[in-house]
Amino acid sequence: NRTGVPEVVYGKGKETEDIANILFKLAEDNGTALATRVNDIEGVMKSLNNIKDIDKYYNIGINNIAKTIALTKKNYKIKSIGKIGIITAGTSDIPVAEEAKEAAKIMGCDVLTAYDVGIAGIHRITKPLKKMVDEDVYCIIVIAGMEGALPSVVSSLVDVPVIGVPTSTGYGIKETPLLTMLHSCTPGLAVVNMDNGFGAGIFAGLIGYNIYKRLNIQ
Amino acid sequence: NRTGVPEVVYGKGKETEDIANILFKLAEDNGTALATRVNDIEGVMKSLNNIKDIDKYYNIGINNIAKTIALTKKNYKIKSIGKIGIITAGTSDIPVAEEAKEAAKIMGCDVLTAYDVGIAGIHRITKPLKKMVDEDVYCIIVIAGMEGALPSVVSSLVDVPVIGVPTSTGYGIKETPLLTMLHSCTPGLAVVNMDNGFGAGIFAGLIGYNIYKRLNIQ
Amino acid sequence: NRTGVPEVVYGKGKETEDIANILFKLAEDNGTALATRVNDIEGVMKSLNNIKDIDKYYNIGINNIAKTIALTKKNYKIKSIGKIGIITAGTSDIPVAEEAKEAAKIMGCDVLTAYDVGIAGIHRITKPLKKMVDEDVYCIIVIAGMEGALPSVVSSLVDVPVIGVPTSTGYGIKETPLLTMLHSCTPGLAVVNMDNGFGAGIFAGLIGYNIYKRLNIQ
Amino acid sequence: NRTGVPEVVYGKGKETEDIANILFKLAEDNGTALATRVNDIEGVMKSLNNIKDIDKYYNIGINNIAKTIALTKKNYKIKSIGKIGIITAGTSDIPVAEEAKEAAKIMGCDVLTAYDVGIAGIHRITKPLKKMVDEDVYCIIVIAGMEGALPSVVSSLVDVPVIGVPTSTGYGIKETPLLTMLHSCTPGLAVVNMDNGFGAGIFAGLIGYNIYKRLNIQ
Amino acid sequence: NRTGVPEVVYGKGKETEDIANILFKLAEDNGTALATRVNDIEGVMKSLNNIKDIDKYYNIGINNIAKTIALTKKNYKIKSIGKIGIITAGTSDIPVAEEAKEAAKIMGCDVLTAYDVGIAGIHRITKPLKKMVDEDVYCIIVIAGMEGALPSVVSSLVDVPVIGVPTSTGYGIKETPLLTMLHSCTPGLAVVNMDNGFGAGIFAGLIGYNIYKRLNIQ
Amino acid sequence: NRTGVPEVVYGKGKETEDIANILFKLAEDNGTALATRVNDIEGVMKSLNNIKDIDKYYNIGINNIAKTIALTKKNYKIKSIGKIGIITAGTSDIPVAEEAKEAAKIMGCDVLTAYDVGIAGIHRITKPLKKMVDEDVYCIIVIAGMEGALPSVVSSLVDVPVIGVPTSTGYGIKETPLLTMLHSCTPGLAVVNMDNGFGAGIFAGLIGYNIYKRLNIQ
Amino acid sequence: NRTGVPEVVYGKGKETEDIANILFKLAEDNGTALATRVNDIEGVMKSLNNIKDIDKYYNIGINNIAKTIALTKKNYKIKSIGKIGIITAGTSDIPVAEEAKEAAKIMGCDVLTAYDVGIAGIHRITKPLKKMVDEDVYCIIVIAGMEGALPSVVSSLVDVPVIGVPTSTGYGIKETPLLTMLHSCTPGLAVVNMDNGFGAGIFAGLIGYNIYKRLNIQ
Amino acid sequence: NRTGVPEVVYGKGKETEDIANILFKLAEDNGTALATRVNDIEGVMKSLNNIKDIDKYYNIGINNIAKTIALTKKNYKIKSIGKIGIITAGTSDIPVAEEAKEAAKIMGCDVLTAYDVGIAGIHRITKPLKKMVDEDVYCIIVIAGMEGALPSVVSSLVDVPVIGVPTSTGYGIKETPLLTMLHSCTPGLAVVNMDNGFGAGIFAGLIGYNIYKRLNIQ
Ligand SMILES: Nc1ncnc2c1ncn2[C@@H]1O[C@H](COP(=O)(O)O)[C@@H](O)[C@H]1O
Ligand SMILES: Nc1ncnc2c1ncn2[C@@H]1O[C@H](COP(=O)(O)O)[C@@H](O)[C@H]1O
Ligand SMILES: Nc1ncnc2c1ncn2[C@@H]1O[C@H](COP(=O)(O)O)[C@@H](O)[C@H]1O
Ligand SMILES: Nc1ncnc2c1ncn2[C@@H]1O[C@H](COP(=O)(O)O)[C@@H](O)[C@H]1O
Ligand SMILES: [Mg+2]
Ligand SMILES: [Mg+2]
Ligand SMILES: [Mg+2]
Ligand SMILES: [Mg+2]
Ligand SMILES: [Mg+2]
Ligand SMILES: [Mg+2]
Ligand SMILES: [Mg+2]
Ligand SMILES: [Mg+2]
Repeated sequence: NRTGVPEVVYGKGKETEDIANILFKLAEDNGTALATRVNDIEGVMKSLNNIKDIDKYYNIGINNIAKTIALTKKNYKIKSIGKIGIITAGTSDIPVAEEAKEAAKIMGCDVLTAYDVGIAGIHRITKPLKKMVDEDVYCIIVIAGMEGALPSVVSSLVDVPVIGVPTSTGYGIKETPLLTMLHSCTPGLAVVNMDNGFGAGIFAGLIGYNIYKRLNIQ
Repeated sequence: NRTGVPEVVYGKGKETEDIANILFKLAEDNGTALATRVNDIEGVMKSLNNIKDIDKYYNIGINNIAKTIALTKKNYKIKSIGKIGIITAGTSDIPVAEEAKEAAKIMGCDVLTAYDVGIAGIHRITKPLKKMVDEDVYCIIVIAGMEGALPSVVSSLVDVPVIGVPTSTGYGIKETPLLTMLHSCTPGLAVVNMDNGFGAGIFAGLIGYNIYKRLNIQ
Repeated sequence: NRTGVPEVVYGKGKETEDIANILFKLAEDNGTALATRVNDIEGVMKSLNNIKDIDKYYNIGINNIAKTIALTKKNYKIKSIGKIGIITAGTSDIPVAEEAKEAAKIMGCDVLTAYDVGIAGIHRITKPLKKMVDEDVYCIIVIAGMEGALPSVVSSLVDVPVIGVPTSTGYGIKETPLLTMLHSCTPGLAVVNMDNGFGAGIFAGLIGYNIYKRLNIQ
Repeated sequence: NRTGVPEVVYGKGKETEDIANILFKLAEDNGTALATRVNDIEGVMKSLNNIKDIDKYYNIGINNIAKTIALTKKNYKIKSIGKIGIITAGTSDIPVAEEAKEAAKIMGCDVLTAYDVGIAGIHRITKPLKKMVDEDVYCIIVIAGMEGALPSVVSSLVDVPVIGVPTSTGYGIKETPLLTMLHSCTPGLAVVNMDNGFGAGIFAGLIGYNIYKRLNIQ
Repeated sequence: NRTGVPEVVYGKGKETEDIANILFKLAEDNGTALATRVNDIEGVMKSLNNIKDIDKYYNIGINNIAKTIALTKKNYKIKSIGKIGIITAGTSDIPVAEEAKEAAKIMGCDVLTAYDVGIAGIHRITKPLKKMVDEDVYCIIVIAGMEGALPSVVSSLVDVPVIGVPTSTGYGIKETPLLTMLHSCTPGLAVVNMDNGFGAGIFAGLIGYNIYKRLNIQ
Repeated sequence: NRTGVPEVVYGKGKETEDIANILFKLAEDNGTALATRVNDIEGVMKSLNNIKDIDKYYNIGINNIAKTIALTKKNYKIKSIGKIGIITAGTSDIPVAEEAKEAAKIMGCDVLTAYDVGIAGIHRITKPLKKMVDEDVYCIIVIAGMEGALPSVVSSLVDVPVIGVPTSTGYGIKETPLLTMLHSCTPGLAVVNMDNGFGAGIFAGLIGYNIYKRLNIQ
Repeated sequence: NRTGVPEVVYGKGKETEDIANILFKLAEDNGTALATRVNDIEGVMKSLNNIKDIDKYYNIGINNIAKTIALTKKNYKIKSIGKIGIITAGTSDIPVAEEAKEAAKIMGCDVLTAYDVGIAGIHRITKPLKKMVDEDVYCIIVIAGMEGALPSVVSSLVDVPVIGVPTSTGYGIKETPLLTMLHSCTPGLAVVNMDNGFGAGIFAGLIGYNIYKRLNIQ
Repeated sequence: NRTGVPEVVYGKGKETEDIANILFKLAEDNGTALATRVNDIEGVMKSLNNIKDIDKYYNIGINNIAKTIALTKKNYKIKSIGKIGIITAGTSDIPVAEEAKEAAKIMGCDVLTAYDVGIAGIHRITKPLKKMVDEDVYCIIVIAGMEGALPSVVSSLVDVPVIGVPTSTGYGIKETPLLTMLHSCTPGLAVVNMDNGFGAGIFAGLIGYNIYKRLNIQ
């Protein structure tokens, strides 16, 4: 479509029943659809399962950590547009990372993850980063709370665009990692809002989509 | 190099003489180099011109609005990695846009610009945007102050990644456009810090570099 | 009265019983009255229904989304002062919109609504806006959270005063839509506080009241 | 035009020569035009006076306190749309008030002013307010710095919409009057950004324009 | 004692049992004592009542709105040091006002109160204020949330020191009334922290104590 | 008068000539008057000296540190209402202290000062404080920047009301001393805005005025 | 190890079972280990007790106030590196102090504590401080909320480095004690983040470790 | 003395003449003294040189980058208490570093410096850090602006206490490096206020003094 971004159901504040219905409608029209920020995943599943023959024609992909549900027609194939990496500094950043992963996947990304690589011990990052570079990722999403310095460190070590996602789950002043990432001294880093894993995943997907398009035109 | 980003002289707070020397040293080693935030462009030029035979072997590119100086060996050729667009909302955003342009150019981008397309009149944006899409830009940098809503609007109309650059030159509370861009409802938008045209240009360059690499491997 | 604004019971922090009593007292004196921010609507209704013959002499208008109760004497007629439009960007802005609607209605406004017209897709706004203009609204209330850019967009498309109401229900930094609206580049936009649907409705009513007065003097 | 607002040259950051040229161009096309935030009024005047026969065909209205220049064809007549009041709390609020006045005047408002009516002595406001009510103003702009309580006080005394303009020229924390006005307990008050006299004047003009239109249709 | 302020038990975060014990100990030593911020008043009462003969030798003064308990020996007499006034803008400010009252009373003040005199309708304040002046109060505590303009208004009408207490129970940005009071244009107003009724009451008490001392020395 | 506060000319932003004229007018009417925040003291003096016979009938009191001018008829006698203390933590707080002193003096206070008693060395405060207590001051104004802890310390040592004045001249985050004073754990401390020496002086004067009135009624 | 800091399990957000396992693993490898921010201490204890022979080979040190569990091999001996002091201003600061104590102890510190020494009454601090100095502590951790002035006061009285820990449990604006400590006028004070008892304890431990190392080399 | 910290003249806001006199007085009494934040170093030097025989009996140490002057009796010997390291991220952090150095030196520290080791390229830090460890520094001061991540990185690599000093000279939001340092995930890091090189130097000195004392007692 015009924006290159699949329509997605933002679950927060919506009724369980409504989420299921909108999700089904979108998948019906477009082959695949994603619901994010779904608090009551079980409830939405119950509603979806009431839809006749849903199991026959659709795959349902639940991610309980990301709080997402992907609904995809069995005969629908998402085109693979390339590999990205997703890295988190801590364990509490993982839900945001998983949301980013689901968003990127629906865009066609193959996702490599490395969670909880820490920042206190920078050495821990070398191995997963090397693997991502060897696998030829075209972009890395780095998610961090607290002081939020990890995206900057990663960016200084690789030659792909890095997308920083600050998380607000730490203690103290919740805007800190956002500020750190914005004031990074290493160019090659852009930022989305606090906890916006979805936005980061879609942004990464758009980069991949533009690579893919150009590769396949030739 | 390791980060895909050319070494750049950040002129702010450096002596005129020093800027010229570092710039020359970097260009000597790498074929090309850029100095940004150069307040006294004339002074740096004078210092450069004292270097023997500089005119014979180097091209000097001055951008008085961006406050940048690019120094490139005559026999050095920056590889063309693709087209990007740069858009500003107002006239006071232009210096930041020009800095982004110079940064992107040294990375090998061909840059299309559309300045002062306003936000008060959204209609004014349609034409330049269509041109950019027709020219197949792979990314657009959008620079705006005041309410800062333009990047979000642009992002909702195109299928390439949009990099938002808030400017702090408006009146009132200077963080406003930064906040607006971060809280955008349209995915496909990532942000760099206030006035950081340089960071936006490099980030756009890194995307292009990764497209280019994959296109030319095949 | 002196201020042109009907006395209203602000329910927050008041006892259920007290809300009912004050509301009844005000309606008795003035023909109509409104209670807002009523958490326990059922409780207030129970108290009102204990009042003798209330059903015989009064109409009770409950709005469960707005959390308001309007109490109006059957023989009391609110004069119709003109049409306004109320637009929301998202679904979570609707309670604030409904509060604005109830406030405007008690002032005598006829209210056209268009909810969830989005901002990510600006195109969605054209149709409802055209309808409002065709119906000759004299003012539009625009309610938005997140980046809060919708009031500014609307204001740039119409020749009536626009009242922006930022909502605080989004994620991130809750003051963002307020700041965006205040820093709008389009004149013709004034703002009330976050979530203050009531204030916006009354303000719109006061404009209408002043139009009505001048029309009916002639 | 579409927005009901005359195109205005925002002088800040523009070259003296450019301001004069744009202003003349706009006045030529539309009969009248306004330049605001003109630092070098004398310079712009000099440029305007170089235009052949300008004195013969145009009236030039300079406001040195507002820092505005209005350029109007001699045969152009701004339609009178009604009266508004402009009130300031202190003397340092007057430049903002004068900007509001010029903006309102170009929209066709007749403007009554009462400056420096203080807030420390609320009694001082009674007389000018009575005069405005007697003259049947349809709206009042109230401009205040420091604690910013005046708009709220005025709003509690009149039955016309009040537009609050906080000024940032006081001491202490400059956002204070903005916050005070936004958190006002009296409905009937809407706010524009700090020091935005222009926005307030245009907003008042749009109300008047909508009254005028309805009065003259009948 | 050295500071002129009775030792007080700050109940917040203390165990029920502990509050009762400290309170009793202090009253035993000094004749009277006060516990503030007592969440579980009933619990503390139960603990106190377990103390042998407490009813015989002590008066217990519970204030359920202020959340305070005063314990005073039957043969202990607090000296009367003069009259003060306590005014609140709204009903939600009353708990803070009652805390101020209890603090002032233990210092020996006679307290006149006028609650919910509003600010939207300034006229409502005239009568209670006149009464306080007629009763010759030597100081007035004014408690307000929202825009917080009432202390400033009161201060401009009387010739006694006014102590402003901002409350944080309103909506929006909770620091607003604090800022308004600090930036007041009327001298004769000093401020304590948000919700600090206790601090205001003690401060008023200290003024009274210093009047009393000088009156009774002569 | 009604507020117990002499009318004062706030010099900031006023023309030199105007300050002199208003000051003279006020002194003529009331016997004495004060101008504060007078940047060009020399200029105002020149204007005053142009007034015929001013030296014959008036005393002019200049305070170059406070930036104030007091104008008092030779036959006018300010009644002495009691003693206060003024203490500053550092040397940069002295201008604010001197403004407080001038304001207090025009109210009739006798002022004892102790400047630069430091906070780093609390011991330095004992002696000047003892002197103030011995001289029976009824109130102490304490002025401090940086961490702003001095008012709290003083308040914990004396039994008179303490008025804290935070100054904004330190480094770092200028609101810090204001916040410290507001969050003080010692009751008996109230606060005026940053740098508001005038407000503190008047507040102290109002306390004294109310003591004096009661002493002299008897 | 490289950083001189024992690996510690940060319990917040981790599963009970996981905390127990990581803690055991770390203690097995290093002889001792600490878990902090353990909400469900009982649950972790249950999990630990399921480990075979744990009681035989390990000492388990629970601190219910600090919310920490220390697990140490019976044959493991933490070297004693010197004495430190820990002081709190109030009772609500004690949990942070206890966390600091546990962190310092695992580094080998002997810890002297003095809790609730108040700030309102500075005199209360003299005795415990004298004891600490007499016992030759090499560093003092001072924990305070509200106005946060205590660390500064302590620092002005002793010749050892003082580590300030602001707590956020007070009322009002939670950053206040942090700001106060940062803006302290007494050098010899450094600060860790709000509530970061752990960080303060480790920092104190590192100082001690560096003293100890140098003493034992000789 | 009692605090272990030499008395220092804080030059900001003091008269040139006064700085010279206080500095001389302090050096006379204590053998050595330091003046910091001296804007007019030349002026102070001139004043000092007017003092009879100053060159004969005193060494004067000027640091034009730090803006400090140290005055030391020729026969006065500062005891050497150990080595510290001072590291800066950029070149604009150097003045703060030099201030820290002068403060540490007057306490008796031997100072190793490594300036402009960058953060964008973490690799650049390895060598200078290794040298400091090899030279057995007992503490490292790390000074950084922008994102402020360097102290955290250093702290994760060494086993000595690290003192972070955020600088405010970068662009954007000046509190960012302060926040980053406070929210660091690596324990072993404590922070002083923005630009407070002096505070960091003294704190480092106090650690050294306590090491020295214990080493020399034995
Ligand atoms: N205009 C700019 N804005 C932000 N960062 C920049 C800019 N120009 C150069 N830089 C970065 O600053 C660093 C150079 O700093 P320096 O070593 O002080 O010259 C490089 O890593 C650049 O990537
Ligand atoms: N004083 C002012 N304050 C805020 N906005 C203004 C002011 N004067 C003009 N404008 C707006 O700025 C826009 C003109 O910007 P420009 O095209 O840069 O001259 C117009 O849309 C005006 O509505
Ligand atoms: N409601 C209150 N608000 C603020 N401070 C209070 C309050 N009640 C008691 N205090 C102060 O808190 C201290 C008592 O604290 P504590 O020793 O913890 O009971 C006394 O010095 C009182 O002055
Ligand atoms: N230094 C000062 N700081 C704050 N308010 C002041 C000061 N001096 C005078 N005022 C107040 O400002 C008002 C005078 O304002 P104006 O009429 O503009 O001279 C009076 O009500 C004074 O109470
Ligand atoms: Mg990189
Ligand atoms: Mg897009
Ligand atoms: Mg419009
Ligand atoms: Mg009104
Ligand atoms: Mg008064
Ligand atoms: Mg006291
Ligand atoms: Mg000390
Ligand atoms: Mg370390």
